[in-house]
Amino acid sequence: MSQIQNALDAADTALDASLDRLFEFLRIPSISADSAYDGDCRRAAEWAASTLRELGFDASPRETIGHPMVVGHRRTGRQGVPHVLFYGHYDVQPPDPLDLWTSRPFEPIRASGPHGEIIVGRGASDDKGQVMTFIEACRALIAADGQLPVDVTIFLEGEEESSSRSLVPFLTANRDELKADFCLVCDTGMWDRETPAVTTMLRGIVYEEVTIKAASRDLHSGSYGGAAQNPIRVLAKILAALHDDEGRVTLPGFYDGVQDLPADVKAEWDALNFDGAEFLGDVGLKVPAGEKDRTVLEQITVRPTCDVNGIVGGYTGEGAKTVIPAQASAKVSFRLVGGQDPARVQAAFRQFVSARLPEDCHAVFQSHGASPAIAVPADSPPLTKARRALAEEWGRTAPVIGAGGSIPVVGDLQRILGIDSLLIGFGLEDDQIHSPNEKYDLRSFHKGIRSWVRILDALAR
Amino acid sequence: MSQIQNALDAADTALDASLDRLFEFLRIPSISADSAYDGDCRRAAEWAASTLRELGFDASPRETIGHPMVVGHRRTGRQGVPHVLFYGHYDVQPPDPLDLWTSRPFEPIRASGPHGEIIVGRGASDDKGQVMTFIEACRALIAADGQLPVDVTIFLEGEEESSSRSLVPFLTANRDELKADFCLVCDTGMWDRETPAVTTMLRGIVYEEVTIKAASRDLHSGSYGGAAQNPIRVLAKILAALHDDEGRVTLPGFYDGVQDLPADVKAEWDALNFDGAEFLGDVGLKVPAGEKDRTVLEQITVRPTCDVNGIVGGYTGEGAKTVIPAQASAKVSFRLVGGQDPARVQAAFRQFVSARLPEDCHAVFQSHGASPAIAVPADSPPLTKARRALAEEWGRTAPVIGAGGSIPVVGDLQRILGIDSLLIGFGLEDDQIHSPNEKYDLRSFHKGIRSWVRILDALAR
Repeated sequence: MSQIQNALDAADTALDASLDRLFEFLRIPSISADSAYDGDCRRAAEWAASTLRELGFDASPRETIGHPMVVGHRRTGRQGVPHVLFYGHYDVQPPDPLDLWTSRPFEPIRASGPHGEIIVGRGASDDKGQVMTFIEACRALIAADGQLPVDVTIFLEGEEESSSRSLVPFLTANRDELKADFCLVCDTGMWDRETPAVTTMLRGIVYEEVTIKAASRDLHSGSYGGAAQNPIRVLAKILAALHDDEGRVTLPGFYDGVQDLPADVKAEWDALNFDGAEFLGDVGLKVPAGEKDRTVLEQITVRPTCDVNGIVGGYTGEGAKTVIPAQASAKVSFRLVGGQDPARVQAAFRQFVSARLPEDCHAVFQSHGASPAIAVPADSPPLTKARRALAEEWGRTAPVIGAGGSIPVVGDLQRILGIDSLLIGFGLEDDQIHSPNEKYDLRSFHKGIRSWVRILDALAR
Repeated sequence: MSQIQNALDAADTALDASLDRLFEFLRIPSISADSAYDGDCRRAAEWAASTLRELGFDASPRETIGHPMVVGHRRTGRQGVPHVLFYGHYDVQPPDPLDLWTSRPFEPIRASGPHGEIIVGRGASDDKGQVMTFIEACRALIAADGQLPVDVTIFLEGEEESSSRSLVPFLTANRDELKADFCLVCDTGMWDRETPAVTTMLRGIVYEEVTIKAASRDLHSGSYGGAAQNPIRVLAKILAALHDDEGRVTLPGFYDGVQDLPADVKAEWDALNFDGAEFLGDVGLKVPAGEKDRTVLEQITVRPTCDVNGIVGGYTGEGAKTVIPAQASAKVSFRLVGGQDPARVQAAFRQFVSARLPEDCHAVFQSHGASPAIAVPADSPPLTKARRALAEEWGRTAPVIGAGGSIPVVGDLQRILGIDSLLIGFGLEDDQIHSPNEKYDLRSFHKGIRSWVRILDALAR
């Protein structure tokens, strides 16, 4: 029997014990956004550090201005083996609204789901369940072989669900200690219930707030209506001009740096048979609203977009008020891909607005973020090895996929530590993360552990 | 000496006593919007009824579900004299913000203004000061001649500043008692400090709220951005289409029934030298934003308009949220003139929106009002007599003018009692009604009384 088979067997044999440990972790209500749970956040950090020490890691909670980080190292002592940094987070979302839970959020249970057994509780998937797939994989490898195949640093954050304010300072201050060859990030999902995936593309974002101001005060529309500039009308006209009839964004230069999918990735995606109609149907929609010449899958992952996320102006209470407001504002965000330059997109947007202001209006801008898209080279050796390992465990190709949203830590790791990330996780669309009755499939947990065993083994070769 | 001169002399002689009575009235804080002042509203109604009884009126407060109305009659007993209904209101706006007042709002004072002596206090102009010009004119006429030249019914409301909820039921229930030949409404202003005016045109209004709905729930713009319909964008596009580049409203049929000013009125207006630049400059604007081929004065009084009075959708708090909202809504109002049909404008707007909805969107409409414009025939005998009387008092022509906003009571009187109104008042632009330091020029008060003496006398001839 090969060493890898021993480790896989160890993972299978230990599954109930692994679950017991996961449940211990889940019982700690480490809600980072609510200071009433500060002590529980610390307890979760200490629990994780102690669990890692038990596995021979040199691990401890580390103080920050917020909740502690957890850092643990276990080195092979051998030369020439890769050094991987594993990132996850031990904090969870608040469980509200409590009355929609069918069990208690911090008393995890095993239950039957429509597709097999599930683990129900806050954090079951996001991110304690996913983190424990990695830690339990380390345990199985050590049990089978007395050591890990690669040097491993585990880095757990306690503020991911509440702004990550300590992350960048901590990465910066501990740059040398955390530096590794690449990072494994487990905060993502499978393609579908049967198909694992590696996320290699994350969209960036430029988020702007614009306020258009006209008269020096709110005006009565009876007295001024017809002659006074109305900033809501001006704003509406500008927002309406941001897209053309083909669904394309009209900012000059917006598509600079945007490239089509490589042919091989496109072919892989076509084979996945993504059902755009079902995706939209789930939220009551039928017709893709984006670029007309792109599939839904492209629209939501590898194409840049523009959306208005909020708008407000004038009287918004009940009934009627005949006001022409002095100002109106909108929050406008752009999802970026490939080589789009956030600074150029931001400047193009501000220029676009300013150029369309009529006399008597001026605009005030506020930035709520500007970060580029992230793309991991689709042909790096660690990526190829990880995809092969996943394919062996799940019996089918693990596609590289894009995610429409951003995972800021990936950019921070690239920028501060200079390392790329492989985003691999076993979450599913129906995990209800951030919602009541969060769950993780037992199969995700079990095969997730086995997947990491195979990946760590493969990365050493 | 003619009878009219006697009455004018009586008004002059009694000015200080008239002011004392006005100050008594002003000291009663009859704030109709605040139930803490219910007793004061009643006190103001009783004060007014008692003042009228003192002048020989058969007057009393009348109960409503809200604040009392005041009705008083004084008939000449002669056949063939006109019967005029005078409308005003005894309630006032709340005085907030108190710290911006330089004197106490309900302790009226005489003070020096840049253009002469002024009366400062809440209600000094709107509407107690204006009401008292009429009552003191009656007093002067009675003092000089022992009787009034016409049959007079005085009707004072106590809820004008807080929705007038009892007005229509009261007019309906007391139709026969309140019926007169025409109504005099004193809730308007002069053309400027030297030029009296009669308001004969009031714009109507159609006020719609539209909510555009798309997905069945709010969506994450990272996951759905690019493929999901965004109701803010849809709404912005529709609102932007409501005007063309010439500032005209694009609703089909919108201008049906709109007529140009009669040549003689236009000539009178041209002679008034209305300074559109100054009007806009006072509120920080420079360039008229309406129909390009119309003057500011036309734009704000006799041309129909469309404005967005409020808009809201998505995230409007501080910072950023990457949401594609399930809905967005706007309050849109149209000011109507001439023969525009409110029902047709409302229907055209709803059709305009519905025709522009993309797939997956639907619109929900709510009406917040639909009333036609009001125009008093510019050549009626009472109007001609009143203009002549005003010209005699002020030494210059009293133009007929339009008001951009609506004065609902005028439409109610027309609809329920079947009578037209002459809108004559002596308020000035700088009276700061509804604001701190409300004032009424002593000259407005004094010459207002004298003007009513002349008008009532003229109407009898």
